Amino acid sequence: MAPIRIAVIGVGKIARDEHLPSIARDSRFELAALVSGSGAQAPGVPTFRDAAELYAALPDLDAVAICTPPSARPALVREAIDAGVDVLMEKPPTPTVGELRDLAAHAGAAGRVLFTTWHSQYNAAVEALRDRLAGRTLKRLAITWKEDVRRWHPNQDWIWETAGFGVFDPGINALSILTRVLPEPAFVRSARLLTPSNRAMPIAAEIAFTSRALADGGEMTAVFDWRQTGDQTWEIAADLADGTALRLTGGGTTLAVDGVTVEDAPRHEYDRIYARFAGLVASRDSHIDTAPFELVADAFLVGRREDVEPFED
Amino acid sequence: MAPIRIAVIGVGKIARDEHLPSIARDSRFELAALVSGSGAQAPGVPTFRDAAELYAALPDLDAVAICTPPSARPALVREAIDAGVDVLMEKPPTPTVGELRDLAAHAGAAGRVLFTTWHSQYNAAVEALRDRLAGRTLKRLAITWKEDVRRWHPNQDWIWETAGFGVFDPGINALSILTRVLPEPAFVRSARLLTPSNRAMPIAAEIAFTSRALADGGEMTAVFDWRQTGDQTWEIAADLADGTALRLTGGGTTLAVDGVTVEDAPRHEYDRIYARFAGLVASRDSHIDTAPFELVADAFLVGRREDVEPFED
Repeated sequence: MAPIRIAVIGVGKIARDEHLPSIARDSRFELAALVSGSGAQAPGVPTFRDAAELYAALPDLDAVAICTPPSARPALVREAIDAGVDVLMEKPPTPTVGELRDLAAHAGAAGRVLFTTWHSQYNAAVEALRDRLAGRTLKRLAITWKEDVRRWHPNQDWIWETAGFGVFDPGINALSILTRVLPEPAFVRSARLLTPSNRAMPIAAEIAFTSRALADGGEMTAVFDWRQTGDQTWEIAADLADGTALRLTGGGTTLAVDGVTVEDAPRHEYDRIYARFAGLVASRDSHIDTAPFELVADAFLVGRREDVEPFED
Repeated sequence: MAPIRIAVIGVGKIARDEHLPSIARDSRFELAALVSGSGAQAPGVPTFRDAAELYAALPDLDAVAICTPPSARPALVREAIDAGVDVLMEKPPTPTVGELRDLAAHAGAAGRVLFTTWHSQYNAAVEALRDRLAGRTLKRLAITWKEDVRRWHPNQDWIWETAGFGVFDPGINALSILTRVLPEPAFVRSARLLTPSNRAMPIAAEIAFTSRALADGGEMTAVFDWRQTGDQTWEIAADLADGTALRLTGGGTTLAVDGVTVEDAPRHEYDRIYARFAGLVASRDSHIDTAPFELVADAFLVGRREDVEPFED
């Protein structure tokens, strides 16, 4: 089969660190072009200033990966669908849940493949945890997602604005694992949104959930914090009603059961994302998972904002 | 046909003002019982302390109308579905959008009718506005929803808490009209959420929307304010690209076109809601409209909170 000719739209950190290397490693894809307002380059392919130039110049393009910040994506996805190409979207997909539903409907009507990626779901240890939670009852589940915003998002002002989601940008990774592994859905009961007095979006959050997966008196919580320096923590601790202690660490790469590591695979999320996308393009199926995003919207809906000290990059 | 034997769960202001009178006026329904923690009474029917007593005592009950505050509803709706009755829900339906989707799935799996009511949609002038917007492009749409919280929600502390939604409790009425009448969906672009420093939920809000229903350079906005004394304002002004001025006033009861009233029906929302529910019960169809609630969640997701002066009832 001929490779899928794909262009990357928006060439920032995530495109350079993950998308371009994964595309280069996967023989089912052929990088056809970049679209970059700042003129980013890749060897052997053209760079276009905007997507309209891309579609005009490459009529045989098959797909695009949209790696811009979320605020630009609704228009770019619609333009891609209307240009007749399939679309892979970085997370979080859109500024609002409503726009994601609208794009899903448009892709469906146009017969294009739309794939909302949530990269943290694509680790073997996440699937192993899912298997071990199937049909089980939980006494406790605690998400701890603490990282240094200056290290991961240096001078990315957009991330503090509307549609940047603040600490929910990494937090949604944890929620995308939660929605993948739980045997019953979780709902937000309450949330504290700790927001720097000079920013629109929170730098830290504490969420309490309800779920039928919990035993009576059980607790499900998440703590997101961008003020962590030194060691970074991306962990989900799940204690089953029968006493089994499950620990997913390293952002979803390692699973331990009662202190014994049972799965510890190197991080290869984006390779698996592109493998999945190749399959979806071949079968002409979309995969549009709104659940992690809906949890974020519900956390803002029920959350209480609390002012914390100003944040300067 | 035998009347639908219905019980009202939660007998507060909205049940006494609207649900009980509409049920009494409609021969397709027969009031069978009340469920009231505070012991509210209606002539000729029993009052139960909780829903479990209701279902145990009246095995031939057909339906319930759930008129409690939203926080109690997810458990009550699930209990009703599991007891084998059909369910009408007051607005806003649940504390979170996730819980509404979950109830929709549960009702579907159980074969029960679930009806999410948005009462402001049920006025003749709303349908007249919808007809006049079909296929049209808008230059401007402005929602103005200003009322006195002390008059409509006296000492209802729950309305200022999580799942009370603050000024979005009336605001969602306007949004339920918006989602009903627009020819293309609207998305929240930005929002200011003016929140009393001693309350969790906003007392006023300003929202800007995008929509493909707007002409280039067109504007769609909403202003909700609970601090209005004297005259109350519930208006939607829509200016078409061709210059036609449409004005929906009185919360959806009156429509004027270029200054001439074309529809002015007395308010009879709840009679129409119960007529619709009778039809759904007969045809075994659910009607679950999540669109107004999703706009509210998106407004909180992208909104900026701003502190305003404390509010005391």
